[in-house]
Amino acid sequence: MSDGGRLYSELFGDAAVSAQLSDSATIQAMLDVEVALAAVQADRGIIPARSADAIAAAARAQDVDRPTVARQAASAGNVAIPLIADLRKRVALIDRSAATWVHFGATSQDIIDTALVLQLRAAVPRVRARLDAAATTARTLASAHVHTVMVGRTWLRHATPITFGLTAAGWADALRRVFVRLGSALDDVSVLQLGGATGSLAGLGDQAIAIGDAVAARLGLANPTMPWHTHRDRVASLACALGVVCGVLGKIARDVALLSQTEIGELGLAGGGGSSAMPHKRNPVECALAIAAAIRAPGLVATVLSAMAQEHERGLGGWPAEWQTLTELVSITAGSARAVETMLATIEVHPERMRTNLQMSQGVIMSEAVTLALATIIGREQAHEHVARAAAEVDNTGKSFLDALSADPAIVEALDRATLERLLDPAQYLGAAPELIARVQRAAETAGD
Amino acid sequence: MSDGGRLYSELFGDAAVSAQLSDSATIQAMLDVEVALAAVQADRGIIPARSADAIAAAARAQDVDRPTVARQAASAGNVAIPLIADLRKRVALIDRSAATWVHFGATSQDIIDTALVLQLRAAVPRVRARLDAAATTARTLASAHVHTVMVGRTWLRHATPITFGLTAAGWADALRRVFVRLGSALDDVSVLQLGGATGSLAGLGDQAIAIGDAVAARLGLANPTMPWHTHRDRVASLACALGVVCGVLGKIARDVALLSQTEIGELGLAGGGGSSAMPHKRNPVECALAIAAAIRAPGLVATVLSAMAQEHERGLGGWPAEWQTLTELVSITAGSARAVETMLATIEVHPERMRTNLQMSQGVIMSEAVTLALATIIGREQAHEHVARAAAEVDNTGKSFLDALSADPAIVEALDRATLERLLDPAQYLGAAPELIARVQRAAETAGD
Amino acid sequence: MSDGGRLYSELFGDAAVSAQLSDSATIQAMLDVEVALAAVQADRGIIPARSADAIAAAARAQDVDRPTVARQAASAGNVAIPLIADLRKRVALIDRSAATWVHFGATSQDIIDTALVLQLRAAVPRVRARLDAAATTARTLASAHVHTVMVGRTWLRHATPITFGLTAAGWADALRRVFVRLGSALDDVSVLQLGGATGSLAGLGDQAIAIGDAVAARLGLANPTMPWHTHRDRVASLACALGVVCGVLGKIARDVALLSQTEIGELGLAGGGGSSAMPHKRNPVECALAIAAAIRAPGLVATVLSAMAQEHERGLGGWPAEWQTLTELVSITAGSARAVETMLATIEVHPERMRTNLQMSQGVIMSEAVTLALATIIGREQAHEHVARAAAEVDNTGKSFLDALSADPAIVEALDRATLERLLDPAQYLGAAPELIARVQRAAETAGD
Amino acid sequence: MSDGGRLYSELFGDAAVSAQLSDSATIQAMLDVEVALAAVQADRGIIPARSADAIAAAARAQDVDRPTVARQAASAGNVAIPLIADLRKRVALIDRSAATWVHFGATSQDIIDTALVLQLRAAVPRVRARLDAAATTARTLASAHVHTVMVGRTWLRHATPITFGLTAAGWADALRRVFVRLGSALDDVSVLQLGGATGSLAGLGDQAIAIGDAVAARLGLANPTMPWHTHRDRVASLACALGVVCGVLGKIARDVALLSQTEIGELGLAGGGGSSAMPHKRNPVECALAIAAAIRAPGLVATVLSAMAQEHERGLGGWPAEWQTLTELVSITAGSARAVETMLATIEVHPERMRTNLQMSQGVIMSEAVTLALATIIGREQAHEHVARAAAEVDNTGKSFLDALSADPAIVEALDRATLERLLDPAQYLGAAPELIARVQRAAETAGD
Repeated sequence: MSDGGRLYSELFGDAAVSAQLSDSATIQAMLDVEVALAAVQADRGIIPARSADAIAAAARAQDVDRPTVARQAASAGNVAIPLIADLRKRVALIDRSAATWVHFGATSQDIIDTALVLQLRAAVPRVRARLDAAATTARTLASAHVHTVMVGRTWLRHATPITFGLTAAGWADALRRVFVRLGSALDDVSVLQLGGATGSLAGLGDQAIAIGDAVAARLGLANPTMPWHTHRDRVASLACALGVVCGVLGKIARDVALLSQTEIGELGLAGGGGSSAMPHKRNPVECALAIAAAIRAPGLVATVLSAMAQEHERGLGGWPAEWQTLTELVSITAGSARAVETMLATIEVHPERMRTNLQMSQGVIMSEAVTLALATIIGREQAHEHVARAAAEVDNTGKSFLDALSADPAIVEALDRATLERLLDPAQYLGAAPELIARVQRAAETAGD
Repeated sequence: MSDGGRLYSELFGDAAVSAQLSDSATIQAMLDVEVALAAVQADRGIIPARSADAIAAAARAQDVDRPTVARQAASAGNVAIPLIADLRKRVALIDRSAATWVHFGATSQDIIDTALVLQLRAAVPRVRARLDAAATTARTLASAHVHTVMVGRTWLRHATPITFGLTAAGWADALRRVFVRLGSALDDVSVLQLGGATGSLAGLGDQAIAIGDAVAARLGLANPTMPWHTHRDRVASLACALGVVCGVLGKIARDVALLSQTEIGELGLAGGGGSSAMPHKRNPVECALAIAAAIRAPGLVATVLSAMAQEHERGLGGWPAEWQTLTELVSITAGSARAVETMLATIEVHPERMRTNLQMSQGVIMSEAVTLALATIIGREQAHEHVARAAAEVDNTGKSFLDALSADPAIVEALDRATLERLLDPAQYLGAAPELIARVQRAAETAGD
Repeated sequence: MSDGGRLYSELFGDAAVSAQLSDSATIQAMLDVEVALAAVQADRGIIPARSADAIAAAARAQDVDRPTVARQAASAGNVAIPLIADLRKRVALIDRSAATWVHFGATSQDIIDTALVLQLRAAVPRVRARLDAAATTARTLASAHVHTVMVGRTWLRHATPITFGLTAAGWADALRRVFVRLGSALDDVSVLQLGGATGSLAGLGDQAIAIGDAVAARLGLANPTMPWHTHRDRVASLACALGVVCGVLGKIARDVALLSQTEIGELGLAGGGGSSAMPHKRNPVECALAIAAAIRAPGLVATVLSAMAQEHERGLGGWPAEWQTLTELVSITAGSARAVETMLATIEVHPERMRTNLQMSQGVIMSEAVTLALATIIGREQAHEHVARAAAEVDNTGKSFLDALSADPAIVEALDRATLERLLDPAQYLGAAPELIARVQRAAETAGD
Repeated sequence: MSDGGRLYSELFGDAAVSAQLSDSATIQAMLDVEVALAAVQADRGIIPARSADAIAAAARAQDVDRPTVARQAASAGNVAIPLIADLRKRVALIDRSAATWVHFGATSQDIIDTALVLQLRAAVPRVRARLDAAATTARTLASAHVHTVMVGRTWLRHATPITFGLTAAGWADALRRVFVRLGSALDDVSVLQLGGATGSLAGLGDQAIAIGDAVAARLGLANPTMPWHTHRDRVASLACALGVVCGVLGKIARDVALLSQTEIGELGLAGGGGSSAMPHKRNPVECALAIAAAIRAPGLVATVLSAMAQEHERGLGGWPAEWQTLTELVSITAGSARAVETMLATIEVHPERMRTNLQMSQGVIMSEAVTLALATIIGREQAHEHVARAAAEVDNTGKSFLDALSADPAIVEALDRATLERLLDPAQYLGAAPELIARVQRAAETAGD
């Protein structure tokens, strides 16, 4: 049996979530489903109460002969079949006749799918808690930096001034949105799978629907309209929601990585990994992990979507394609959320570098402001041409934008020096930034998160 | 200029939706945004009313010099920049001074993103209408076939009996779910994009937020908390919802394709494409198109997710990666919905072939029923062994399962012949199928769709 | 530390390959690189010979404090940094001064990338051996069934007759092609990574290139033109080759799965997984695994491609996105190759079912043959129309195609009954099938595999 | 009929290649295949020579009733069926009896696949020419900048010095590799598709193989071992090669974009798109296009791989999923190659900014050099600690690294000031950079490209 995957689980994952996705947790979740089914069948007089007790007593993951189960899974085609055989064996040791009632009327997919849902119910809220914490930190940063002016960048170039508060508010609002959507997707998928071999529930007898209701209730799930063996839209929608989360986290990580480049230095990362050879390096490890997750998630989401067209009542290949894919997707999303939460909590903001960078262009970053003002007087085309000429002069001569603009009679005639000076002040050209930050704060309060 | 793409638009798309996604429609949507912005700015006294009128008069897609716009887009990096230049030129012919007020305070992304939203608002409801119609047809099939017994298949093998009604109900319920989710995703993305160069709205002056509210209202959109130039989660979520729709449609198409195989023949397709060489062939073209869409959608969704980590206030490459990808995704989803709607409306159900196929295994398809009954008497392990032996005998000798079972004293002792006969009747082993169908119908009624 | 992933490694993987990809093997490969580097540096008098000996003595995977390495990897950003620290600690116990010379002049990426290449060199040939064995089996099937006539199917419908030999030859030829391509891609990627921090080899001193040559030689690799820290085309090409392998295996698996459907029964699977509830079921587990791999591989390949645009001399996120993705891709390809090899070796061919199915259409499957013959006499359009009418009559009345054709005077005038009978014999309409099979055999012989 | 897609073809594509992929070119390529088949059949006496002449005369794309073909494609399931019908109609006008001999013995897939191969043969060499030109430019840059010292960056942070020549050589070598691989993949896929309905060539009569040889020769293709209707590995391998090309181009574009950031300014882009609102902006449009292609290609490649598991002799959905996907992939690869070729040809290198940036860290960028030298004297651990302390002092006090190192007695004792000064000179720590550049040049010469 391979021992792959543990070496990277702390690097790419989040310890608490990894525990919920571990082999032990997977096995225990499957056993929990068997226990719930047996308990309900006993309650309803379908199987003996002491059989249900024996099943409950035997259903402990730590007792499972895991190497055998893993080996037999290869020929059975899934883990549930050998796991149930293992459970029956151990139940029989407690109560020989009880073995008959293990998994009675169910199919292996009922157990595997419902166990998956239970694991998601355990793992995803932890991811959401990370997102919530990250959003709160981002909003705190936004409030603290309502007036911290910085360069706004488009195409990786200086464009017009903004504030760091606006940047942080953008992160916060996106985090809030994916927090909400991930919650909806989790609610949506929180349904029992119980259908028997082909979804008719025939093996469960006359009380099938009521059994479903009761098993679902025991496990804290809803009983859906129908079994969903080959209707994977809920699972796929959850995968999608996770993929979108990774995208949002990746965007934040990329921003932070770019803003903390040596030459830009507007943000600093207190932590960061060290280099084996270069003592001066503090590497943005959290950013790298979140970006790595953003690169990996789309392929995993695509796999879950590709697996959807499953045949008949239970398909061939589509369903097993989901198993490790979903687990990996939850895991890297959790790791990414952990990384971004940590990173935002330890980020250092350098307002003075932001100011310095704003001045790099000798004022040319304010060209839009000047152009718009000038356009209302001399027309847009003319304005654009004159301002572009002044900007080029700054480039060529190194003089300030104010001087270059002031040297153009057409501009001076339209805008006096005091006006030009005001137009060249980044702090006077922040538009609705403070108001937008306030809107983000209010949206978060309204949502109550 | 290439002329690619038209040859396949009717094959893979849906005519009405393709019209909404055409180059003309794209251009008109962008112009509509400019008109709305100018109108609002005129209302608020920011620009002259007659300038807004001139802009409105010039904003007709058919007047645009499209080859020039397409050519200049290559150097500008997007279509909006040359389109605005083209619009300014035509506005100036009407009112020279009005050209200054075209696109005043906005950035090209404001126009492109809002136009995209307008196109989605026009196109996606048509997709939803197809899904709704297909769901209704599927529910009608479900009602009509509550008692039409057929083979339930797992791993492409006979498993236990179900009804065709149950199969159709499964399709209907999945269609209803994606109809609802696609609606939510469309609502979610139905927001204005208006942020100016870096999202601060600085170019729009003091009334920026109010302008946003008014432009959004004019266009039938919501004004979101903040501009979302590099926060693409809403767009990505819509892409995901479309991907899940394609998966659900692909599953239905695959089921129909498999059930209409020459050897199975339980469903027939009245239409279908002809073969150029084989007069006897009626090809399941609609199934192929829906399966093709299910194969293509995951890659397109993954692209949109991969594009999410956009840099700073406006990124480099991520955003343009969305454009054709989203359009193509909407288009193939529309085509798939059209194909499945058509296919379900013209499907032929062959109950007699269903019955014939049920009998193919001489009754062995009922092995679960016999095993479960026997297990309660002689224990599960024993039951499984005896039934498996009888099934093997059927395989080897061709005798009926009833005869094989009846030849085993252990079985006969537990279950008399009448019981065995009842256990071997597929119609007696349909579990909760009718009740599940009823649940699906109720769910649809409750939803009011 | 999570324990995820072992439960599924035998199901989806191939034991021998999984061992090569295990955490132990990964660690040992990295240590092997350090040993080779130190040995070469000692040979060239750069580091003391006894330091190299101490490094070699300490470089045993089983001695590594794996939990600590895994935990520290999370803050370091990769596994090599803590692993080297662990190695230094253990080297120092043997020879305190030797610790300085561990990893001397190298960077962590040198170790991780070269170790990856070593693991690929160990694992991929095993996958290729499976492909080769499967190809050989397929060719044997092709030879044995040169004359086994069966239905050729297009769009999941009967089209024209072929032979099972032709089908198997198609599988064999595709397997041979991907066997060859995978070999080329493996050769291509079999290069040393040794560049130091930024690829200049500065840390390795004056003999850097010669050291690279010698380390490469020791490890059985080529020394490439340049280090390739952020140039991932070789790795990506290998990923692609694996993806194409999974596609070819998936196609074979899908064919087998479809041909062994209960209603078709032309192939049987001797092995196959049992069902927990239905004693009669023999599930095509191998097909499901190969199809699952074909569903998963594209997303994994896409991830490796998405990770390619890595920044500067070493990137941010792209590289770590490769690690688990590549391992998983090799693993599932190996599992799929194992499954298909096993499946082809144990497949049962049922020529009698092939014949029966050929007759299902009462001869209509021969419509192309009749049409082509008729067209040369009465023109294509006329021929198509008359044959289509006869085919429809078979459908409606159940009479044989021969009778239907014979009832049409226009046809009878053109083709006498003997001709019609010959045209309706599937064995007379196999075209170049035997010759194509021979070509496949010759291509394999020429290739010498 | 939609008119989508033209608006973006010049933005994302390359005009010459777009022309090869246009609807007209697609239709003409299909017609060319029909002409070649008829000519060969006439040569061999299978069809009348004047029929072949009539077919050749009628086979002009501009005469095709394209709207009808597009509309009928939707019900036929592919474009070839209505196109052949259209051709027959036009052939009949020339020679009524010739219509029978159009497409004689072939199937629509023969025509579509072979036409695709012809289009690839026309389009891909143009992409390769772009790659070759870009590689040549990159090598010229490498030669010109063998001694242009710049910052080497890892994790977006300063690491150790390199030269711009080394960076450019890395680009050149990767471009050369993908140029070669794309050539191999194109050769590999340059095969005829001719198999008839189910790949047996039955419709082509006794001379089928010889017809294939002759048709292939006429079209400049190889005749493969077997028809490959559902064996898509060659097509998939080409798609993969294109995907890897996009990855390599995306890496170059990302490097250039990052190096030309306002704050870094080591590269400049002479061209670049203008902004509608900000006169000072020169946007790196070419970089954006290449990055956009690198984001889109993986999803398109994944789609082609996902489509591989096609059923039986001709599948259901997999094949049509390839059509637009492949075309789009070729198109964006061409556009990306055009953008990068243009960008490299017009790039401005700013050695003085490279020097300035090197000095940003007061010499700390040389910490690896100092550490390695120091380690050989006082041991690695000690060396790392002392150097890290000096680096931290630079950070805190702003003094130079030389001063900070010189203030540490342990360091001074080991390394005298002259040695320290030498160790702190970036030009002395470039390792094998010039030799690596020379290797890249030699590799290109050897390859003869």
